[in-house]
Amino acid sequence: MKTYKIALLPGDGIGRDVTAAAWAVLEKAARLNGFSLDATSYPWSCDYYLENGSMMPADGIETLRSFDAILLGAVGWPHKVPDSASLHGLLLPIRKAFVQYANIRPHRLLPGVQGPLRSDGFDILCIRENTEGEYSGAGGRVHQGTDSEVAVETSIFTRKGVERILRFGFEQARARSGKLASVTKSNAQKYSMVFWDEITQRLSAEYPDVDVTSYHIDAMAARMVMAPDSLDVVVASNLFGDILTDLGAAIQGGLGFAASANINPDRSAPSMFEPVHGSAPDIAHLGIANPIAAIWSGAMMLEHLGETAAAAKVMASIEATTARGIGAIPGKDKTDAITASVLSALD
Amino acid sequence: MKTYKIALLPGDGIGRDVTAAAWAVLEKAARLNGFSLDATSYPWSCDYYLENGSMMPADGIETLRSFDAILLGAVGWPHKVPDSASLHGLLLPIRKAFVQYANIRPHRLLPGVQGPLRSDGFDILCIRENTEGEYSGAGGRVHQGTDSEVAVETSIFTRKGVERILRFGFEQARARSGKLASVTKSNAQKYSMVFWDEITQRLSAEYPDVDVTSYHIDAMAARMVMAPDSLDVVVASNLFGDILTDLGAAIQGGLGFAASANINPDRSAPSMFEPVHGSAPDIAHLGIANPIAAIWSGAMMLEHLGETAAAAKVMASIEATTARGIGAIPGKDKTDAITASVLSALD
Ligand SMILES: CC(C)[C@H](C(=O)O)[C@@H](O)C(=O)O
Ligand SMILES: CC(C)[C@H](C(=O)O)[C@@H](O)C(=O)O
Repeated sequence: MKTYKIALLPGDGIGRDVTAAAWAVLEKAARLNGFSLDATSYPWSCDYYLENGSMMPADGIETLRSFDAILLGAVGWPHKVPDSASLHGLLLPIRKAFVQYANIRPHRLLPGVQGPLRSDGFDILCIRENTEGEYSGAGGRVHQGTDSEVAVETSIFTRKGVERILRFGFEQARARSGKLASVTKSNAQKYSMVFWDEITQRLSAEYPDVDVTSYHIDAMAARMVMAPDSLDVVVASNLFGDILTDLGAAIQGGLGFAASANINPDRSAPSMFEPVHGSAPDIAHLGIANPIAAIWSGAMMLEHLGETAAAAKVMASIEATTARGIGAIPGKDKTDAITASVLSALD
Repeated sequence: MKTYKIALLPGDGIGRDVTAAAWAVLEKAARLNGFSLDATSYPWSCDYYLENGSMMPADGIETLRSFDAILLGAVGWPHKVPDSASLHGLLLPIRKAFVQYANIRPHRLLPGVQGPLRSDGFDILCIRENTEGEYSGAGGRVHQGTDSEVAVETSIFTRKGVERILRFGFEQARARSGKLASVTKSNAQKYSMVFWDEITQRLSAEYPDVDVTSYHIDAMAARMVMAPDSLDVVVASNLFGDILTDLGAAIQGGLGFAASANINPDRSAPSMFEPVHGSAPDIAHLGIANPIAAIWSGAMMLEHLGETAAAAKVMASIEATTARGIGAIPGKDKTDAITASVLSALD
């Protein structure tokens, strides 16, 4: 029987609640579809940090490297450990070390879910660059603490980095409706964003079947709210993708429904799957977190592993659940009840 | 009779249509309220550029300096002149030269206007830093045209720049509900945004009556859609404010309703008032542009000049107009019909 080695990183807060839920669903889906998932769980988290002084052991990345995929819950608990240590000690290093340069986030309304928009007919796939750009971490401060202090933060875009994410976007667009939206702000950021636009332009010659349009980030944010049904695949930089995918989560009814995949398209290292939501310390371990985003992320993992039938079955079970109103209204149902419904829909 | 000297910059495309409309309303409001507006109109635009090789004469800024205020329509016509020349040759230099560091944009639904959200009870005042930050224009490209090309774009935040916009935000919050939201992304941009957060923290001691909360830009974008009624005054950097105000325009029903003021709070140079929308070349001079954003921007100008009663009268006339359904539905009414309705409501 085919077996996949999965590293589980439940992380902090509700990350633990939703990872347990997702895992139960994934294991059953595997069993029913004739393959097996072999999990190893690591306790790397803010609690781990408080005991050990780091979010993961020094060989953490090497430990993860041998897995077929990573399933992550959520990282961070600001009152215990500053984000600068927690996120930069676990989540962000994994994305970078494993060259998970494509962060994919689907935005559509599940059946039975009412979003904040009057419009409900949209199906957007956001692709966010995940390794460089505005989150390169380059910068500094001079004259610190004085009246003339200056802080600089430098966005670094490499041709390799931009080209590969755009290529990934073109491929995804080709596999869907053939429509690609590329997001920049080249009228105000004339180095990085003009560079991005130029590469988009050049690549478009290689994809004559893809209809690509450039939008400014401000106009795109407005479009996601005014005319989300006019969009299909959207590709954006690290920061712009970060913003647009939270907006995407909002229009799909909230973070409880927003799934994501951090993909290494070359498969030279494992990819990582995680709900977009954070650790939500205020509702941790109360049994009320919505596990749907995590389960959906798990379905994306099965898809990535090539288990397409099982992935489709998990998605159908999520949809059957929300269509019955279970897990569809934020705060209404318990984590366990939602998970039980998805599990029974798998049969 | 008190007279204010106003520089009119209709600019490009529908900028001309809506500036004419706004001017008719402002002149009548002045007459009815016992003061007068003395306009000088400048043809600086993309057409001007095609004839003269620049968006304004070399002494353009000095010419504008002696005015009490500037009313601008819209700048840019990408098929004639690249944005890098048009925007950077007129709009952006004025904002910077006249230290219009506070870009104020109100977001609420006018009566009769249906926005894209199910929710309609919000009243947000966005304050955008307008002179530095992510739009500082610093950066460059190396190894241009080769596989190893790198583009960098550097955000520059000065203590003076950050402090003055935050102070402005605290003052506005004090004058409204006492609630201020400051927008950063300090978990991923650890120089610029941590700097902004630190200054916010320090200033909050001076404004014990203001309740300030920091949000990450991604979470704030989601909040503007999920819970816009939870927000009042929102202060953000140049880029983040740019994005949030287009989003604000979207939730208030579209760019036809989004007004803005580029304020020099020290009054050491004129402030500038402009609708958020662009020049919309595709509908230029068809007589179908919605002038409401421009008229509202004009009301903000009257307010800034100290003509509070006239400003209130203009706003009431806009509201009477949209409440009757005129100008409330994008594309339905002609520019002239909307303007005529606002004019007659002034009586
Ligand atoms: C927690 C934070 C650093 C992270 C990011 O911006 O990448 C999160 O917002 C996300 O979208 O995954
Ligand atoms: C045209 C562009 C440079 C401008 C900006 O980003 O400042 C516009 O989007 C705005 O919001 O006023």
